Amino acid sequence: MKQYLKENEVLCDLQNNGLQILQSPERFCFGIDAVLLAAFAAGQSGAHGKDGRGVPAPVTENARVLDLCTGTGIVPILLSARTKAAHLTGLEIQEDSAEMARRSVALNGLQDRIEIVTGDVRGLSQICEKGSYDAVTCNPPYMPAGAGLQNPESPLAIARHEVLCSFEEIAAGAAHVLKPGGHLCLVHRPFRLPELMDTLKRYKLEPKCMQLVSPYADREPNLVLLDCVLQGRPYLRVGPQLVVYDSPGHYTKMTQEIYGDGPGQDG
Amino acid sequence: MKQYLKENEVLCDLQNNGLQILQSPERFCFGIDAVLLAAFAAGQSGAHGKDGRGVPAPVTENARVLDLCTGTGIVPILLSARTKAAHLTGLEIQEDSAEMARRSVALNGLQDRIEIVTGDVRGLSQICEKGSYDAVTCNPPYMPAGAGLQNPESPLAIARHEVLCSFEEIAAGAAHVLKPGGHLCLVHRPFRLPELMDTLKRYKLEPKCMQLVSPYADREPNLVLLDCVLQGRPYLRVGPQLVVYDSPGHYTKMTQEIYGDGPGQDG
Repeated sequence: MKQYLKENEVLCDLQNNGLQILQSPERFCFGIDAVLLAAFAAGQSGAHGKDGRGVPAPVTENARVLDLCTGTGIVPILLSARTKAAHLTGLEIQEDSAEMARRSVALNGLQDRIEIVTGDVRGLSQICEKGSYDAVTCNPPYMPAGAGLQNPESPLAIARHEVLCSFEEIAAGAAHVLKPGGHLCLVHRPFRLPELMDTLKRYKLEPKCMQLVSPYADREPNLVLLDCVLQGRPYLRVGPQLVVYDSPGHYTKMTQEIYGDGPGQDG
Repeated sequence: MKQYLKENEVLCDLQNNGLQILQSPERFCFGIDAVLLAAFAAGQSGAHGKDGRGVPAPVTENARVLDLCTGTGIVPILLSARTKAAHLTGLEIQEDSAEMARRSVALNGLQDRIEIVTGDVRGLSQICEKGSYDAVTCNPPYMPAGAGLQNPESPLAIARHEVLCSFEEIAAGAAHVLKPGGHLCLVHRPFRLPELMDTLKRYKLEPKCMQLVSPYADREPNLVLLDCVLQGRPYLRVGPQLVVYDSPGHYTKMTQEIYGDGPGQDG
C-alpha cells in the first residue's frame, strides 16, 4: 500500500472488512463522531430500533447516498461496508483532502461504489439534480465561524468551524438533492439543537429519529445524531442514549457492538 | 386531616417535609413527571449542573412562580419545599380540581405562599399582567386533541389531551406573563420535541437546558424536561440523562436523590 501514502499521512486500519483509510494529522483526523454517524445512518446505532420495532434505517438497499463535508471519505467508506447502498458520493471542498480521500477509495478497491467529488456545498444546486439522492449524510463543522478563530483558512479551522459553509447551507443543499421521503443524517453538538431543528424544519427536513451520545453514563451528552426526512410527518423517535465509555479507554458494550475495536479519537 | 378529604379522594404523603396532597384517582393522579418537573425547576435534577458549574436554577430565591395546568397543585406544593420562591400561583381550568388543590394547600398550611386560581391558560393576558412572573412551570397535556378521544370532556381526557389548551397557547401565555430573562420549565413527550422547540422559539422562549428521562438506561427516553428563557441567547445545555429505574420497582441513585421514597406513578 506504500504507493498510496504521501508524506505526513498515516494509514489507519478501520477494523471493518479490512478497510483502511489515509489521514493527515496536521489537516484533520476523523473522530468517533464519523464512525457513529455511519452506524446511525445504517440503522445500526440502536436508535432506529431492532427486530422490526422502531423506524426504518435511513440508508436502504440500492440507495444513492451523498456525503457532504466528506473530508477523509470516512463516512462513505464505512457505509460501503455497513449498507447495501448502490452508490456513494463524497463531496469535499478542499482539493488536498478530496485527493487523499480518492486514494483511500482506490486502496480499498471501492472505485465502483464510491466517487469523491471536489465541490462546494453552497453550489449543490449547480452540481446535482434536484431529488437525485435517497440519503444525505453530513459530519459538518460544529462551531460558528466567528468564535475565536486564529487562522480561519487552515484546513483544521475549515473542518471545525463554519468558515466555508453554514448549517443552513447544508440543510438547503440536502433539501435540494433529496427525493421527497429521503433522509438527511447528521451528527452535531447538542448545544445547537434548537437552532438545528428550527433550520431543518424550515427546509421541510422533519427530524424523525434522534440519539444523544454521552462519554459516560452520568455525563452531559456531547454529540447528537439526527435523522430527518424530507417532507416527513412530524413524530420524533428518540433512541436510547449511546454511552461511549464504561471507564477511561474502555468502550461500553453498546459502543463495542457499533465500533468493533476500531480506532478514532473523540472529535 | 379527615375534614379535608371528600368521597373518592385519597390523601397521599409526599415524603417531603411532611407534605401531603389530595388526589382523586377517577380524575387524575400526578405522576413521576410532576415530581421530576419540580426538581428540574428547582435546579435539583442534575440537569443544571452542580457546585457552581452549569447554568442557574430556574426558580430562584424570592421568585414569583406561576404553574399552568396545575391539576392537584403538586408542582407548586413541591416547589414550596424545594425552593425559596416568594409566592407560587397554580392555575387550573377545572373547578373541581382547583377546589381540591386549594384544600391540599390548606392542609399543608401553605395559604401564605400558594394560591390556586381557577382560570384558562388561553385567557392569561386578561388574568395576569405582562411580565409579572419570574418563572412559569407546566406539566401540560401531552397528546394532541384529536388522537382517538372517546370522551373529550372527561377530566382524564382534559388532563392528557390538548382539549382545552394547545402547546402553542401555553407558550403564548408564558411569554406574556414572564419577565425578560424569566424561565419557562416544562415536561413533555420527546416525540414532540421538534414542534415544541419550533413553537418556543417563535415566542422568544429560547431552550437553555434540556434533560431526557428514560425508564431504564438502555430504553428510549419517554419524557423530556425543558428550561427556556424569555429572550435568552441561543445555547442549549443538555444535562445528563435521568434514568428512573435500575430494575422493576427499584429507583436508581439519581432518582432516589431527587425523589426520596415518595410515591407517584409513571405518567
